[in-house]
Amino acid sequence: MLTSKNKVIIFAQDAFGIDTAKTAVGFIKYGLCEIVGIVDKRFCGKTASDIVEKLPSVPIFSSVEEAKSKRTDADVLLIGIAPAGGNFPQEWLPDIKKSIQLKLNIVNGLHDFLSDIPEIAGLAKDKNVFIWDVRKPNRKYPIANARLLDYPMQIVLTVGTDGAIGKMTVALELTKSASQKGKHSCFIATGQTGMMISGRGVPIDAIAGDFMAGAIEEELLRVAKQNYSIAFVEGQGSILHPGWSGVTLALLHGSLPHKLILCHKAGREYLKSTKVKIESLKQFIDVYESVSLPLRKAKVVGIGLNTFGLSESETRDLVNAAEDETGLPADDPVKNSGDKLLNACLR
Amino acid sequence: MLTSKNKVIIFAQDAFGIDTAKTAVGFIKYGLCEIVGIVDKRFCGKTASDIVEKLPSVPIFSSVEEAKSKRTDADVLLIGIAPAGGNFPQEWLPDIKKSIQLKLNIVNGLHDFLSDIPEIAGLAKDKNVFIWDVRKPNRKYPIANARLLDYPMQIVLTVGTDGAIGKMTVALELTKSASQKGKHSCFIATGQTGMMISGRGVPIDAIAGDFMAGAIEEELLRVAKQNYSIAFVEGQGSILHPGWSGVTLALLHGSLPHKLILCHKAGREYLKSTKVKIESLKQFIDVYESVSLPLRKAKVVGIGLNTFGLSESETRDLVNAAEDETGLPADDPVKNSGDKLLNACLR
Repeated sequence: MLTSKNKVIIFAQDAFGIDTAKTAVGFIKYGLCEIVGIVDKRFCGKTASDIVEKLPSVPIFSSVEEAKSKRTDADVLLIGIAPAGGNFPQEWLPDIKKSIQLKLNIVNGLHDFLSDIPEIAGLAKDKNVFIWDVRKPNRKYPIANARLLDYPMQIVLTVGTDGAIGKMTVALELTKSASQKGKHSCFIATGQTGMMISGRGVPIDAIAGDFMAGAIEEELLRVAKQNYSIAFVEGQGSILHPGWSGVTLALLHGSLPHKLILCHKAGREYLKSTKVKIESLKQFIDVYESVSLPLRKAKVVGIGLNTFGLSESETRDLVNAAEDETGLPADDPVKNSGDKLLNACLR
Repeated sequence: MLTSKNKVIIFAQDAFGIDTAKTAVGFIKYGLCEIVGIVDKRFCGKTASDIVEKLPSVPIFSSVEEAKSKRTDADVLLIGIAPAGGNFPQEWLPDIKKSIQLKLNIVNGLHDFLSDIPEIAGLAKDKNVFIWDVRKPNRKYPIANARLLDYPMQIVLTVGTDGAIGKMTVALELTKSASQKGKHSCFIATGQTGMMISGRGVPIDAIAGDFMAGAIEEELLRVAKQNYSIAFVEGQGSILHPGWSGVTLALLHGSLPHKLILCHKAGREYLKSTKVKIESLKQFIDVYESVSLPLRKAKVVGIGLNTFGLSESETRDLVNAAEDETGLPADDPVKNSGDKLLNACLR
């Protein structure tokens, strides 16, 4: 529903630069189309690069109206915020309506579907704009049954100690490195941001429990049949998260990975907003490996560190510490590249 | 949506007595209302007890019409079959329509919702009968976050080596034994049959991934606030099932159990319809315990065996073998009672 021709305004009111706006940052970094503006009244007049390092200098505006008046060619408003639970804040509805009035198409990755709100759907129809509710499952999925065993395609899944720490980014960097090496590789999106970036995928956390694993299996079978040699699957959540571990396990069993990259955010001691302590990387390696399917035991082969905001020397120390603890190669593929972790996957 | 006053015809065409008709057998054994007939043309003229041991002698008819003509007071048709995947077989639709014409209310536990079929919904409205799609999530659920830690209520979850082997039955027998001992105890249903039996519960495998654990947490918080001393939660699936392990883990993390009873069907060597081998009971004890939340490590305290169809001496041998292998008390609570396993939970 998005092509490289779209001109996108990202809506991140009061949230740009913080964790809940990871959709915004991910889309700016990896999305295919031009981003013409960001809405966050706190940073009006600044640019994305003033707030988040290594981003391009996309201008930030105070409102959708202002952004659209400065860039009249904008044709999409993309909701760049993903609050826990995925509910759509009621206070944003006036902005959505205003955007549709301004003839902007809407891309929404939250659990609340805008196309289910009659007033919004009606207005969109009147104004002839589309609403893409990325997470809305739009078809039936089968029950997974390890059918990927029949194909030689290598499968790498990024797993994590916690959610929202960069599993999508690591998978994207691995895909980029693999492509640069001439591998016939692909990225498989399982979350709203990844789906916006790659244009398709599986909205796994919005799919009914029985069909989650079947959905990712089906998506991987599709590329396996196209003779891709390696697929990098975007992981979700954490196997020890009280709320969404079920999604994590469905991905692990449905995607039947050969290799896992364990992602971790430097300094994170507890799973966010929970009382679950991250004891060690080893703890998570043990749990992920012990609960992987005996049909194809998945092995953690590398550690993807998110060292955002740390200095070069701090980063180096953390990489060394992770390697010492686990005996596995570790790296921050955003600061460096995906090459080191890719080599661990190809070994 | 069902009370003790309803008179139920169970629809189990071509399936009564086999695994896919476990809903039928479970409802006959534990349901609150009178069952006036079963539909399965293969056994027309026989009774339930001719086909499945220890069942009452409910008459079996060849069709809904025949059943209704023999018992004109029947007011509910309950779909007693749960095929893997939960799809509603199209060839049953004429029977459903006929039943509604005969003024029967419909109770359906499959993933396909009859109330979503305009023709069926319209007919039901005309005839003034209800359609209870048990698995249809009818509200929003929160994200789970180990809130049960704040309550003293003991929680026991039945887990399994495989699905459809008797986890609901073990939980029901434990609840019965606890009530007989004067414990303020309750059964928490998580599947269609359990919900039909107890009149409420959480259709966990039909809930979107992110909200599965939150749904069971909310249901348990409800009873914890009513000062129940012990809750027995019906488990689902298997932690090593390629298709629905995500549901299993969501239940384990959302219900935050103190104790687990591992259920196993005697003679089952592979997870049904999969290539996953059941190596040993110990294998499953290890996986369940290692993936339980560190906030409250769940311990397997007993083995619930399903020895259906085996002789007394065969049963005794299997119970002894399970106890020798695991060092835990084992029993078939249907053949004996829930007392032995309950004692293990109360220790």
